[in-house]
Amino acid sequence: MVERLNAEDREAALALLPGWVHDKAVDSIARDFRFKDFSTAFAFMAQVAMLAEKAGHHPDWSNSYNRVRIALSTHDAGGLSEKDIALALEIDRLMP
Amino acid sequence: MVERLNAEDREAALALLPGWVHDKAVDSIARDFRFKDFSTAFAFMAQVAMLAEKAGHHPDWSNSYNRVRIALSTHDAGGLSEKDIALALEIDRLMP
Repeated sequence: MVERLNAEDREAALALLPGWVHDKAVDSIARDFRFKDFSTAFAFMAQVAMLAEKAGHHPDWSNSYNRVRIALSTHDAGGLSEKDIALALEIDRLMP
Repeated sequence: MVERLNAEDREAALALLPGWVHDKAVDSIARDFRFKDFSTAFAFMAQVAMLAEKAGHHPDWSNSYNRVRIALSTHDAGGLSEKDIALALEIDRLMP
């Protein structure tokens, strides 16, 4: 069972993820990505899908043409956990 | 330039797409799909992405674990066009 991050650990983690916005109401983080076109956006999504499947932790996400929005939260923990931070850091590493 | 479907053509088209719900407010159609797991859901998304890229017409869609929601509308036409109907029919053909 993964535990929800306490306030101190959460703030420390968010400092490592400047591109992500914390939604306090539901304790999730989200980031918007923009690409050249649909093909490039979906190629990124395929990479994120592999990371997510490997981590056993999956995003809530949407795509519209060249835009991808990714939200992360650990539903079982009722908010942000280490799993979200780890996946967000891995997703950020995909970006040039 | 693709034209928005008139009411008669739209109703005839929607009759061919019983799984899709028409949102009258924005004149779009949407369908929810459910799969065994994330991997299966994303495999379906990859197939839809190929169809969309081939058609030069892209969905607004979201995924959460085993669920995929696809919405189709032709932004340039201000509502549903032949392109949406054609893509929806092709997506339906992916389903067993």
